[in-house]
Amino acid sequence: MPVSNAKTLARTLRPSHTARSSGRSTVLRHAPGFVISLRRGERDSLLQQLARSIAEGIGQGKLPLGARLPGERALAKSLGLSRNTVSAAYELLESQGMIRRLSQRGAFVAQQSSGSPMPLRWSDKVAQRAHLLDEPVLELLAQSSLPSPAYKLSAGTPLISCFPFAEYRAAVDRVLSAHAATAISIAPTEGQPRLRQAIAAQYGVEPGRVLIVAGAQEGIDLLARCFIDPGDAIVVERPTYPGAIQAFRAAGAVLHEWDTKEWSAHALERLLMAYRPKFIFTMPTHHNPTSRIMSLQQRLDLLEIAARHQVPVIEDDVYSQTTFEHPIPASLLSLDRRNIVISLSTFSKLLAPGLRVGWIVAPLRIVKQLSLIKMRANLFTEGLGQLALAQMIEDGTLASHLIRLRQQHAILKTTAARELRRNFPATDLSFTEPTGGLYIWCRLTKPHDQETLLMQAQRLGTSFAPGCAFCAGSPDLEHFRICFSATDAAGLPDAIRLLAQAWRGEG
Amino acid sequence: MPVSNAKTLARTLRPSHTARSSGRSTVLRHAPGFVISLRRGERDSLLQQLARSIAEGIGQGKLPLGARLPGERALAKSLGLSRNTVSAAYELLESQGMIRRLSQRGAFVAQQSSGSPMPLRWSDKVAQRAHLLDEPVLELLAQSSLPSPAYKLSAGTPLISCFPFAEYRAAVDRVLSAHAATAISIAPTEGQPRLRQAIAAQYGVEPGRVLIVAGAQEGIDLLARCFIDPGDAIVVERPTYPGAIQAFRAAGAVLHEWDTKEWSAHALERLLMAYRPKFIFTMPTHHNPTSRIMSLQQRLDLLEIAARHQVPVIEDDVYSQTTFEHPIPASLLSLDRRNIVISLSTFSKLLAPGLRVGWIVAPLRIVKQLSLIKMRANLFTEGLGQLALAQMIEDGTLASHLIRLRQQHAILKTTAARELRRNFPATDLSFTEPTGGLYIWCRLTKPHDQETLLMQAQRLGTSFAPGCAFCAGSPDLEHFRICFSATDAAGLPDAIRLLAQAWRGEG
Repeated sequence: MPVSNAKTLARTLRPSHTARSSGRSTVLRHAPGFVISLRRGERDSLLQQLARSIAEGIGQGKLPLGARLPGERALAKSLGLSRNTVSAAYELLESQGMIRRLSQRGAFVAQQSSGSPMPLRWSDKVAQRAHLLDEPVLELLAQSSLPSPAYKLSAGTPLISCFPFAEYRAAVDRVLSAHAATAISIAPTEGQPRLRQAIAAQYGVEPGRVLIVAGAQEGIDLLARCFIDPGDAIVVERPTYPGAIQAFRAAGAVLHEWDTKEWSAHALERLLMAYRPKFIFTMPTHHNPTSRIMSLQQRLDLLEIAARHQVPVIEDDVYSQTTFEHPIPASLLSLDRRNIVISLSTFSKLLAPGLRVGWIVAPLRIVKQLSLIKMRANLFTEGLGQLALAQMIEDGTLASHLIRLRQQHAILKTTAARELRRNFPATDLSFTEPTGGLYIWCRLTKPHDQETLLMQAQRLGTSFAPGCAFCAGSPDLEHFRICFSATDAAGLPDAIRLLAQAWRGEG
Repeated sequence: MPVSNAKTLARTLRPSHTARSSGRSTVLRHAPGFVISLRRGERDSLLQQLARSIAEGIGQGKLPLGARLPGERALAKSLGLSRNTVSAAYELLESQGMIRRLSQRGAFVAQQSSGSPMPLRWSDKVAQRAHLLDEPVLELLAQSSLPSPAYKLSAGTPLISCFPFAEYRAAVDRVLSAHAATAISIAPTEGQPRLRQAIAAQYGVEPGRVLIVAGAQEGIDLLARCFIDPGDAIVVERPTYPGAIQAFRAAGAVLHEWDTKEWSAHALERLLMAYRPKFIFTMPTHHNPTSRIMSLQQRLDLLEIAARHQVPVIEDDVYSQTTFEHPIPASLLSLDRRNIVISLSTFSKLLAPGLRVGWIVAPLRIVKQLSLIKMRANLFTEGLGQLALAQMIEDGTLASHLIRLRQQHAILKTTAARELRRNFPATDLSFTEPTGGLYIWCRLTKPHDQETLLMQAQRLGTSFAPGCAFCAGSPDLEHFRICFSATDAAGLPDAIRLLAQAWRGEG
């Protein structure tokens, strides 16, 4: 019998108020099928009969491990015995290791029904709230970023072949030659001061407002743990980043969607008034997955409405530095005059996703709160990577890399758009060419099953990110996202050709 | 008015059932001091009077932002007006931006009382469950591991000057010359296969049972998120690691203490029967903070009882490789025949705490569950450090480092014990010399205030970890922990001399 049942039993097992005390027998309530039945004049004493009866109940599993036995007084009364007899029977059972008596708390079954313990059922031990990631498509998607398919169009990565390998190696070596002890010692939860300083300088804020995190996903998780109590409402965009949906849901949030097609001020205000959300999570610049850009007026409206309703705004600003074409509107953080914006970014989309270094810019009060949560989560972020990145910001390596990266990405985007048009009939697929970010958000006009299409694509050695992964509300079954920077220019045409082949149902 | 109040109001504001409809005025329930009062025969129409009355209520803050206004029909009835009049007044107010009418949901106040929005009160937005780390001593302790005091005896770090800097630099460089793309690309949540393989080989388990985490603290946090639903009981030792207390509490666990003085099987069984905990968290080898070692018989008893009661055991095995003297008893993981043990360890105590790489060995089912939780928390752990550590295990660098480290630590331990005896009267302080680990657990026999003593010590440039930080139940006010490996042999006598000076109350 699983322990979870026994737990209930332990709380409730007691002599039934409606016990049939027919002569010298009694039925124990909540222990179905278990009857204590005694007869005078047997060879065994009543004490022995009582002890044996309970021992058999344990042996047969009718009294499971942990079940609480009736109080001595109550059992004596319902069986018409003296309390001393019941007490002696319990003492006998305890001496045999069958039960255990705890002062104040009563007597409990201390043995499994079978001689040897049952194998532990681990799944019974897992917390209710941990069983949340149950989307088969999401699991497929997670797997599809890994080695198996040749072309990982489902991923979210800048072009790895453009990474400044030599400069990074030099920066790491410089840290290990001059600051190795700093890199490997206990460090502040808020991050390496040198990196906080370098990032703060780019924003023109004081370093105390910068919190270093192990990538944007950790930033999102910390923000979720900081703001969300189970049942709290929040506003996310439709569509939005799947990792945010997952982290916010795991924290117990109820997600309400704000459509990015219009980013309508009126629609936002309705959401704020109707649900009083804890925060708004938005990606105004090269939005993931749509690559859309919120206009300046839409940004001002968003800030105005959020301030009026006293709702914080979390700006996921991960893609603003990946833009091909200047200018883009100012960030929400820089437009914020009322101290209501928290900004989140990462080196994952600027350099490489495996570096696992991101940052949050927030009010001092919130940086402190987030640090306390991060301390409990992992104490602090690894130091070598932080110091190497600080070095690359300081010496201009990052800035010159970004110029090259944007050029390469613009070429890849053009290639991807051309190949999509070449391989898919215009009646089947439509998209808007992005001006930055890493993605093309494609719409398939004919009905199809996303999971089947994804499996088919993976079989052919390519992949994509299905629309359903990006929506907190009703699943988007029309769109999919491809990352044009996940493979180099030579592989991209082949990756898209295979995708179209999967779409046509050719295996 | 804070939004949290307005939220309640929005749900409840409606015409009072006991409204005093004296002529043409009505009191709105739940809006204290706000009265709508109309007179016929005024210069303004009833419509205008009504609209102005509500506008004033908003302007004066009596009707706060977000408050729901009475339904048109109900208000018309209580004021003796036609519904059309109320409807027209609401329309007028909406056109002025004072209120907003949502179909189905009614009319809401859409403006703050003052013209410009109030500053956002961030503290109102923080989740209830995030406000947990409120121990002033813990904050002091966290700070005391950072640069400020000269001697960080409060820390938990192996001797940094013993770190194999040259070998680490060579390992990092080798990874960046041969496997750089692997190090910086998207990687499996479970960890770099090469490191999982290297660790699995040391345990003699299959690599699938090893999960790489960003240090043992992340391991503890993931285990808390995996197993604990709010209100779940768990068993921890008394005393135990403060980071575990914090993470388990943050997950909502109720902590029950098992005393490490005896590690009594009987006491453990009482706890399991009385509270049915989700798991037992134990540090059987060079326990933190006491440095005690659980005997083989105590280990076998623990496993037997846990298996009988179907309670998983989490073995925090962070210090077993720091032992000065062989042999120590086999780990719980290696003694486990029933698949009930999860083991947790880290490179933080073997090499350096800033590397942020640790691991969990668990049943496959649990590795998968933990990975899903880790994916939501931070996607995966940084790659360069993992690959460099794999390299150092494979080429024997770690093994030969550990031999040197243990020798150095044994010397530091002897120095620390000698200096404690020299500086503190035997009547004031007692301790048992450890045979491994990083700590000496000291007992002060005279009453004192830990917080005052810690502040005094920090003022003098030294520190310690106060006993109260290590207990989930009643605070331990007698003990403190010093880390003998947090400073080198030259500094240790001075660090302890300053500690004794603080104890004597000398500034």
